[in-house]
Amino acid sequence: MELFEAITKRHCYRGQFRDEPVKREDLTKIVQAGLDAPSGCNRQTTTFVVVDEPKLVSEIAKMHPANKGMFTAKAFIACIINRVHKPVYEGTMSFEVEDCSTAVQNMLLAITALGYAGGWIDGWLRVGEHNETIGNMLGVPQDKIVRVIIPIGIPAEDVKPPLKMPFDERAWFNKYKL
Amino acid sequence: MELFEAITKRHCYRGQFRDEPVKREDLTKIVQAGLDAPSGCNRQTTTFVVVDEPKLVSEIAKMHPANKGMFTAKAFIACIINRVHKPVYEGTMSFEVEDCSTAVQNMLLAITALGYAGGWIDGWLRVGEHNETIGNMLGVPQDKIVRVIIPIGIPAEDVKPPLKMPFDERAWFNKYKL
Repeated sequence: MELFEAITKRHCYRGQFRDEPVKREDLTKIVQAGLDAPSGCNRQTTTFVVVDEPKLVSEIAKMHPANKGMFTAKAFIACIINRVHKPVYEGTMSFEVEDCSTAVQNMLLAITALGYAGGWIDGWLRVGEHNETIGNMLGVPQDKIVRVIIPIGIPAEDVKPPLKMPFDERAWFNKYKL
Repeated sequence: MELFEAITKRHCYRGQFRDEPVKREDLTKIVQAGLDAPSGCNRQTTTFVVVDEPKLVSEIAKMHPANKGMFTAKAFIACIINRVHKPVYEGTMSFEVEDCSTAVQNMLLAITALGYAGGWIDGWLRVGEHNETIGNMLGVPQDKIVRVIIPIGIPAEDVKPPLKMPFDERAWFNKYKL
C-alpha cells in the first residue's frame, strides 16, 4: 500500500474482528516495521512479544471484555520498555516513550497496509496493573514493563475513524496562530 | 512510495542538504501526515509551525553549526506540545509525548516518500534552552513548548543509516527471551 494511503486509512479500530487468524508471516512483517522505527541515539529500547498462541491470546483478550477489538483479537503485540528509563543523552534525558511510540505507529501502518486493523492500548494497561499481569504471562523480566499492547485481526465492521481538526487549526507557516 | 519501502529507507539524516528549497506543497503534505497521526483519546495535542521563510530558517539553522543537517536545512517543522501535559485518561494520564512522537514519525516517513530527508532533533532543544529561543522566534504561546524540530531538505550526501539489532534480539513469539 502506498504510504499516504496507509497514513489516512490507519485508525484505532475498536470493532469486532473476524474469526480468522493473523498469518505469522504477516506478524513478522509488522514487527519488523516496529524494529525499523527510529529511537533516541539509536538505542532501540523497545522489545516485542508477539502473542499468537490461541490460549494465550484468549487469556489476554478476556481481560477487557468491554473493548470489542481487544476481546475478539486474533493476535497481540506487546511492546515492552524499561521500568526505569535509562538516560542516553546529556546524562539525564531518555527517550523510551518516544522509541516505543514510533515503533507502535510503524506497526499500526503495517497492520493497515496488510489488510488488518489494530488498536493502541496504553492507559488501560496501567489501571489495575494489567501491565503486570500480562508481563507475568509473557515472562517479561522484572526490570521491564508492558507499555502498549496492540490487538490485531481482520476487521469485521466498518468503523468510522475519529474526526480530526482541520489543518489551519493545528498548523501554520512561520508563526504560531492563537 | 510503498509503505514498507518508506519505513526501511527512513533514517535520521545528519549530512548536508542541497541548496534547493522544499516546495510548500510538499511541506503541506508532510504536515498533513503529522495531523493524521493517532493521539491519546484523539486529543490531537501536537501543533506545528512550518518554517520556510529563508531568514527564519537561517536563524534557526545557525544555532547548531555542528549538525550539518540542521545547519544546511531548507525548512524546519517545529512540533509543539503543552508545557504541562493535560490528563486525558482516568484523571491522571496524558499522552502528549506519544502524540508528538507518532506525528514526527508520520512526517519522517512522508519526508522520505517525497524524496527529501529529515532528522529528529529533540534532546538538543532542551539543552541551553534552545526550545525557548525557537519558541519565541515563532510566537509560540508561553504555556506551550517546542518539543521536536525536524530539519528538511534534499540530501546532498549518501549517509549510512545506523545499524539495527536483528529481529530475534528484540522480538519473540509468545514468550520473552532473556
